[in-house]
Amino acid sequence: MPKLVLIRHGQSAWNLENRFTGWWDVDLTELGAREAKEAGELMAAKGLDFDLCFTSVQTRAIKTLHLGLEAMGRLWLPVEKHWRLNERHYGGLTGLNKQEMREKVGEEQVHIWRRSFDIAPPAMEPDSPFDLANDRRYAGIDVPQTESLKDTIARVLPYWEERIAPALKAGERVLISAHGNSLRALVKHLSNISDDEITGLEIPTGQPIVYELDEGLNAKERYYLKDR
Amino acid sequence: MPKLVLIRHGQSAWNLENRFTGWWDVDLTELGAREAKEAGELMAAKGLDFDLCFTSVQTRAIKTLHLGLEAMGRLWLPVEKHWRLNERHYGGLTGLNKQEMREKVGEEQVHIWRRSFDIAPPAMEPDSPFDLANDRRYAGIDVPQTESLKDTIARVLPYWEERIAPALKAGERVLISAHGNSLRALVKHLSNISDDEITGLEIPTGQPIVYELDEGLNAKERYYLKDR
Repeated sequence: MPKLVLIRHGQSAWNLENRFTGWWDVDLTELGAREAKEAGELMAAKGLDFDLCFTSVQTRAIKTLHLGLEAMGRLWLPVEKHWRLNERHYGGLTGLNKQEMREKVGEEQVHIWRRSFDIAPPAMEPDSPFDLANDRRYAGIDVPQTESLKDTIARVLPYWEERIAPALKAGERVLISAHGNSLRALVKHLSNISDDEITGLEIPTGQPIVYELDEGLNAKERYYLKDR
Repeated sequence: MPKLVLIRHGQSAWNLENRFTGWWDVDLTELGAREAKEAGELMAAKGLDFDLCFTSVQTRAIKTLHLGLEAMGRLWLPVEKHWRLNERHYGGLTGLNKQEMREKVGEEQVHIWRRSFDIAPPAMEPDSPFDLANDRRYAGIDVPQTESLKDTIARVLPYWEERIAPALKAGERVLISAHGNSLRALVKHLSNISDDEITGLEIPTGQPIVYELDEGLNAKERYYLKDR
């Protein structure tokens, strides 16, 4: 029976500072690194093991994966990194402190941008210091200027279909280290969650989420590893 | 013009204790981790960049790569891990302190095992605590019971031919993080070093070695990055 584990990266520097991060490449804090290591220790203690790992091209998710695998004695597992597993792109909100935003445009507008399914924040301005259109890691990719959760899902799922689902169907045990919204995309897809509901689903940092899947990759069970 | 950089992992716990390590999976020391980070900083300062990285399935080489890439802001680069880049397998010597060995069998015999081209140490005993034949990471592989340098070269080169050389020929800039003897294999091949000479060639830890290659992947220049 295919088994899949999802893990959201540990606390990042901008989680701590309460700033919109999106595609900006922020490192883990010390707490975030500890969360990653503890996630690996928990997976090892519970007897989980993997054949193949996936992550984004963002440092916080990659390091969470590396620290977790190291704690499991599995640093040697194959790892595939892809931008389609990146966090949602927060457009013009990137870099802003969430409290400052609330004061500027009002709580309600911030809530809409953060929690609506298909409304994207204003696009990133071309001269923004947070613009990544010329970052080498995105060469050949149309870097989004902003994304709704719907947009994020639309670019995550092709990667699921092309790379991850076939590995699971071939019997590989898969670990994915990614971000709040790229994981929401997968959870929505696997657990058949409605557009309205998915925006309210919180994915905690550093907590392995286990999916037991049937042969058709339909979710039979989803649970936090710490609860079992 | 294809460019290739080789780096031997930083100091490991058993380098420090002066024990034969081979395929046993020993971690970096703090010094080893610092060497790796400094290698990355040096590569970034000298303007080196890469498209694809290769390493063994041994923690000390993988971590050296990760720490170096992180220091370069390149943790997102694709990394391929393969057992063919592992250190030479030291057979029955694995785990022994080099000084103890010298006292037991004599300086000359140890020197022969360590430095001869085609004489392998005695095979690892089947009940050795260091036997890795049942390690999951080597599933489906005929784990060697001992290796001469010649044996090591014979299993490194097919991976060079199959995976690394084609990437270089396709214009990818390649970084390889590996081990004293798997790197000797590559240096012997690329620099046309004789069987007698290669056993005396020391590859220092944490020092990026740069190869400028021509289109046929013949070495035009080989140098330590720190010297340029």
